[in-house]
Amino acid sequence: MAKKEKIKRPAAQAPKGFRDVDPAEIRGVEAMLGEIRKVYERYGFEPIETPFVEYTEALGKFLPDEDRPNQGIFSFQDDDERWLSLRYDLTAPLARYVAENFQDLPKPYRSYRSGYVFRNEKPGPGRFRQFMQMDADTVGASSVAADAEMCMMAADTMEALGFERGQYVIRVNNRKVLDGVMEAIGVSDDAQKLAVLRSIDKLDKFGVEGVRLLLGPGRKDESGDFTKGAGLSNEQVEFVCQYIEFAQEGLESTTNFLDRIEDQNIEWDTSAIVEAYSELEQMAQLVKAGGFGTDRIHIDPTVVRGLEYYTGPVYEAEVTIPVEDEKGRPVRFGSVGGGGRYDGLVSRFISQPVPATGFSVGVSRLYTALKLLGKTKTDQQAGPVVIAVMDRDRMADYQQMAADLRAENIRAEVFLGNPKNVGKQFQYADQRNSPCVIIEGSDERERGVLQVKDLAAGAAAAAAIDSHEQWKEERPGQFEIPRDDLVKEVKALLAKQERGDG
Amino acid sequence: MAKKEKIKRPAAQAPKGFRDVDPAEIRGVEAMLGEIRKVYERYGFEPIETPFVEYTEALGKFLPDEDRPNQGIFSFQDDDERWLSLRYDLTAPLARYVAENFQDLPKPYRSYRSGYVFRNEKPGPGRFRQFMQMDADTVGASSVAADAEMCMMAADTMEALGFERGQYVIRVNNRKVLDGVMEAIGVSDDAQKLAVLRSIDKLDKFGVEGVRLLLGPGRKDESGDFTKGAGLSNEQVEFVCQYIEFAQEGLESTTNFLDRIEDQNIEWDTSAIVEAYSELEQMAQLVKAGGFGTDRIHIDPTVVRGLEYYTGPVYEAEVTIPVEDEKGRPVRFGSVGGGGRYDGLVSRFISQPVPATGFSVGVSRLYTALKLLGKTKTDQQAGPVVIAVMDRDRMADYQQMAADLRAENIRAEVFLGNPKNVGKQFQYADQRNSPCVIIEGSDERERGVLQVKDLAAGAAAAAAIDSHEQWKEERPGQFEIPRDDLVKEVKALLAKQERGDG
Repeated sequence: MAKKEKIKRPAAQAPKGFRDVDPAEIRGVEAMLGEIRKVYERYGFEPIETPFVEYTEALGKFLPDEDRPNQGIFSFQDDDERWLSLRYDLTAPLARYVAENFQDLPKPYRSYRSGYVFRNEKPGPGRFRQFMQMDADTVGASSVAADAEMCMMAADTMEALGFERGQYVIRVNNRKVLDGVMEAIGVSDDAQKLAVLRSIDKLDKFGVEGVRLLLGPGRKDESGDFTKGAGLSNEQVEFVCQYIEFAQEGLESTTNFLDRIEDQNIEWDTSAIVEAYSELEQMAQLVKAGGFGTDRIHIDPTVVRGLEYYTGPVYEAEVTIPVEDEKGRPVRFGSVGGGGRYDGLVSRFISQPVPATGFSVGVSRLYTALKLLGKTKTDQQAGPVVIAVMDRDRMADYQQMAADLRAENIRAEVFLGNPKNVGKQFQYADQRNSPCVIIEGSDERERGVLQVKDLAAGAAAAAAIDSHEQWKEERPGQFEIPRDDLVKEVKALLAKQERGDG
Repeated sequence: MAKKEKIKRPAAQAPKGFRDVDPAEIRGVEAMLGEIRKVYERYGFEPIETPFVEYTEALGKFLPDEDRPNQGIFSFQDDDERWLSLRYDLTAPLARYVAENFQDLPKPYRSYRSGYVFRNEKPGPGRFRQFMQMDADTVGASSVAADAEMCMMAADTMEALGFERGQYVIRVNNRKVLDGVMEAIGVSDDAQKLAVLRSIDKLDKFGVEGVRLLLGPGRKDESGDFTKGAGLSNEQVEFVCQYIEFAQEGLESTTNFLDRIEDQNIEWDTSAIVEAYSELEQMAQLVKAGGFGTDRIHIDPTVVRGLEYYTGPVYEAEVTIPVEDEKGRPVRFGSVGGGGRYDGLVSRFISQPVPATGFSVGVSRLYTALKLLGKTKTDQQAGPVVIAVMDRDRMADYQQMAADLRAENIRAEVFLGNPKNVGKQFQYADQRNSPCVIIEGSDERERGVLQVKDLAAGAAAAAAIDSHEQWKEERPGQFEIPRDDLVKEVKALLAKQERGDG
């Protein structure tokens, strides 16, 4: 059938995994980013913007022994046949930027930026191929004071956006701590390490009992699907689970646990964990000195924070307000951002170590959390005053009215569609959320007056009116004004509607 | 030699034709777009955002008889092997969006949007592969009142940004007028039509004499390079050139010319031009009624405005302030944006006519023009107060000072680099444009005081000081305050610096 069609039209649809953004979200996200920017600037960070495209090699996304960049990113070749890619995060381009401008930048270099990133992955519900991140990074600071500052900034950001104390928490760990756990139980194989980390990462989802199974032989879920375990021995599993149980209670409790282990002189060598802990303790002291209680920034030595390029402290901003999971059970909303120390990224480009730490906000998720709390600042914008076109030849006069209103900073427009059907013009004004329609037919013109149709009052009155006759007689919400009073009367009407007594 | 390198590092450089944007430009452009948004909203337009990626077929950028999209755009295939492209303007994606949501949108649909677009073309000086546009469009309005409104909005935008009356002009033409000229002289071949339009488009550059040559046999430039002409006969060239000369003077003058031609009953049939003129005259009346003089919106029947998809009125925002060309001669700055009616774009997707008109700002060019006039609102942001680190172990105390300042909305940070060299900390503060450095060594701590190093005053005083001894003695710009007065004293210093008497 399609073959018979004479004109083959392209499909009018956004590509799979991409979406359009409506006015409320555009305004809401912009307001949210503005608040975040203010906090970041107060912490001494400066904006910087890198392009959407980088040389693929700068992103480090070539598969070993492959000529094409790997599948997770969108790549194409330029006219020099060099591979280019759309950025998949804001960190890799920042590393390139810092390396390119290393001599000229103040160091430590504090910067922030927001923008879309792209992933060439299967889209799913709420998972898009284009999504926005907002990052802040301190490059050239090896001290954990830089990491502590990121956590404080994240906490201040949450409150600046309207989250109250107790509705969020910044959870902090150090990648070296889990490395220390691995060392204590004698796991050195990379694949097994990864399996252990992945198991611990499931703590939120499956609890300690679930993690116990995942660390050992494996776990069968309710549907019967089996996940292979990390294959630790019973003793190894026991150590990790005891560690986790104490670690969940926080820094002090874990330290006690480690002391006890050491006192008992059993076979586990916890020296690496203990050493890694000193960094966590320093961070705890710094945030305490900054006036941040453990209700805002919480050291939690079970945080895994993905399996990325982190080399030291990792941190995660979590919204703790309850939402329902797929089965209607209350769960915490979860992570809206996170980050950590990545000392290896800039030195991919230059031959000197460049320590760095950074925090990245998942803009959509954060916005969704704000919406759930009713904290988005969208300020539903009032629509424009619509000047109805009653007589095509008098377009210039109507244009004049719009110009008069705009000169007083009032949103206004002449109806520019086909004016034949006046009802359609009113319908349009309704759709646009207009405060009122201005009507000047030949009768009004002769008499030097205008009809003002107050759409808010009209809608309210309509609900209370019984018959078409009554409607015609009363014309609720419609009133007459002298032509010369247009601006004054519209201003008064807008003020009345804003007060809510319209 | 490169082969001998053990570690092959990726080059730290932005891809050819792409660039990073510095803080001053980020802030300046953002402020500029904010002003434009305000005007567009006042005219009744709403924001909408489409993704950076579209199906290539939706952009209409497949070459005839080719399986690959054409060269001017960046394209790649998704996992379904469908071709995707980075958007090359904001109009084609809008057409897709309107077609996809046609039933739900208020019509006429007024919207605006800004964002980067991408061109896979050879970059050159000032020509990038990623650049920003800001567009406004009215879709579903066939009346030239919609085009007139675009022109008025463009003129209001220029003044909202700070351009004064006389520093800019919106030049307006109608694509049908030039079609009418073509019809009058009997040119119907598409290639020849294009050549004639291209010749007229060179009027600004070469004057009427240059156009005369380009319309006829061709033109040799100063370097001896020859451009082939459109091949019109002498009579045809004469008609077009006379038309141009009158048209340059404006609407009335051209109308007189056409009347005269008609009176003389010579062979040219100007009926199509005359018909097209009625639209231009309507537009002239509408903008006049809107209170816009010809010094702001000028009907100029020589405007060609590219060779794109326009089907009716075309308009161009031109900055008329003089700048120097490559040879140091004063020329007008030129176009900073433009647009026109494109009745064919939305109906590519759906089987009904959808008239539309839109205006697009070249954001970089407009920003450059504003900079030339000293009208950018960058407000060079003061840098953060820097807390020097005199004693590594007291990081928490320094962090506390920063927190105190931030709580009062003052930009502040602890120096997070290697603190060993205090001179480097001061150098860093200078680089960051900091108002002052706060110093607390062991001596100050014991005495409960802080040293404040006022960097602005210090720099001013340094210029007037002769010797190192005098410097050490006077320590210009440095003073001592009680620790508890930190916030109060820094506030006073910032106020003093802002007044400029620092």
